[in-house]
Amino acid sequence: MAGDIPKNANGEPVEVPPGHVRLRMTVAYDGTNYCGWQWQDGQMTVQQRIEEALARLFRHASRVGGSSRTDTGVHAVGMVAHFDLPEDDWRMEPRKLVLALNAHLPNDVRILAAVKAKPTFHSRFSARGKQYRYLVWNHPAHHPLLLTHSWHVPWDLDLDRMRRAARSLLGRHDFLALSSSPGYERQHTIRHLSRCEIRRSGPLLTFIIEADGFLYRMCRGIVGTLVQVGNGKIPTTELTPLLASRDRCLTGMTAPAQGLILQKVYYPPRA
Amino acid sequence: MAGDIPKNANGEPVEVPPGHVRLRMTVAYDGTNYCGWQWQDGQMTVQQRIEEALARLFRHASRVGGSSRTDTGVHAVGMVAHFDLPEDDWRMEPRKLVLALNAHLPNDVRILAAVKAKPTFHSRFSARGKQYRYLVWNHPAHHPLLLTHSWHVPWDLDLDRMRRAARSLLGRHDFLALSSSPGYERQHTIRHLSRCEIRRSGPLLTFIIEADGFLYRMCRGIVGTLVQVGNGKIPTTELTPLLASRDRCLTGMTAPAQGLILQKVYYPPRA
Repeated sequence: MAGDIPKNANGEPVEVPPGHVRLRMTVAYDGTNYCGWQWQDGQMTVQQRIEEALARLFRHASRVGGSSRTDTGVHAVGMVAHFDLPEDDWRMEPRKLVLALNAHLPNDVRILAAVKAKPTFHSRFSARGKQYRYLVWNHPAHHPLLLTHSWHVPWDLDLDRMRRAARSLLGRHDFLALSSSPGYERQHTIRHLSRCEIRRSGPLLTFIIEADGFLYRMCRGIVGTLVQVGNGKIPTTELTPLLASRDRCLTGMTAPAQGLILQKVYYPPRA
Repeated sequence: MAGDIPKNANGEPVEVPPGHVRLRMTVAYDGTNYCGWQWQDGQMTVQQRIEEALARLFRHASRVGGSSRTDTGVHAVGMVAHFDLPEDDWRMEPRKLVLALNAHLPNDVRILAAVKAKPTFHSRFSARGKQYRYLVWNHPAHHPLLLTHSWHVPWDLDLDRMRRAARSLLGRHDFLALSSSPGYERQHTIRHLSRCEIRRSGPLLTFIIEADGFLYRMCRGIVGTLVQVGNGKIPTTELTPLLASRDRCLTGMTAPAQGLILQKVYYPPRA
């Protein structure tokens, strides 16, 4: 049956086929033990785990579409995903579907909510923006309870400098120099960064980064570069010319995956 | 050499012997993979890990004394411990001792600080109070990033009722009914609870519990009982008569170990 559903180039159903309902889910996961979100041959991914759970609950295979392809080791508390079910299969109330799915998922992947969506809703194409958070533990010794979801930065950091540099990234820019974009992504590299905030609570720094979209590893490029600004390796005033250079080699390091958390995905009010 | 040091019944040196210095450390650990703090034959404990690291750094065995004997699975961010070194071995500055010890410890045990203490300082006997925190994730699905350091409570909780009940525990009481004290501990069971606060941030409840001392599993008894008050299983007004009964069977469940974190240990200003 799943074979009849019209799909885009990634094998995701673009619009719900006749006789089906589209479900929208919010998903949280610890990315430590996964090769990211997206299905990969021979690797365990979060998408695959959820598809396996759906296959055990319903009679047929469902392809799950996600809003973001998080990398290996990256976590999520607000990933949005969607899938289609034949109307006949859609008898459970959403609360029970969530419980049933979680019963078939490992502890490190949790469905937080499921609702019936509009037939035109698509977790990736309908998204208007995303918020990521990045955790840095800034102390000589790493925090034993944050080992798998923060970056240990033992060096002294000048937070004022980092915040000034973060502000200079706000607005519409070409972010190629702060991403690790593969070749095919080098053409549409302008994004609007609407928030780039650094909160401190003791040794814990929380980066809150929001944009209308993100290039490959852009968040981790921003955090790595801001940490190098904080450490005095890159001058605060350098970020605007660095962006203009479109040269990845000139910018700072890419922060490691395990500090990154997909926090929220934004949709238009009536998506 | 360690054999010459005068020790108390637990094998801990009570006062620093001549020609030795006493060091005071702050220790953080993820208790998931340990059978608690205290040395146990044939089991891996945090104390043993630290003694092994010290043995690799110095020529002789050091016995490490801790302020609290945390249970299997319980965590700490502010455990205080002490040990003695012959003066000849005490050449490193404290910052370097911390780095060297951490280099010989696994990631889930971290020394946060080390300072030279007064010869009369004892991490357990000098302590005047402790703060524990307990994390509860109150949502139908557990948070994948908090699996090993929170208790998943999916039931509806009435926070106002819980806070009223928490306030009724403040002050000087016999806490036997809220502990799981073994026989020998049933005589001195009066403690002064100076703080019992419940903070909410979305589905995360943080219990902050401070007392001049804690009976065995007293914190977990308090949290388990307050959660049952929140769930309507125990009336708010019942806690005072329950304490008076000194009967563990009448009170609520013991909250699981993995939500508990030893936060701080308090000492007199010039201890």
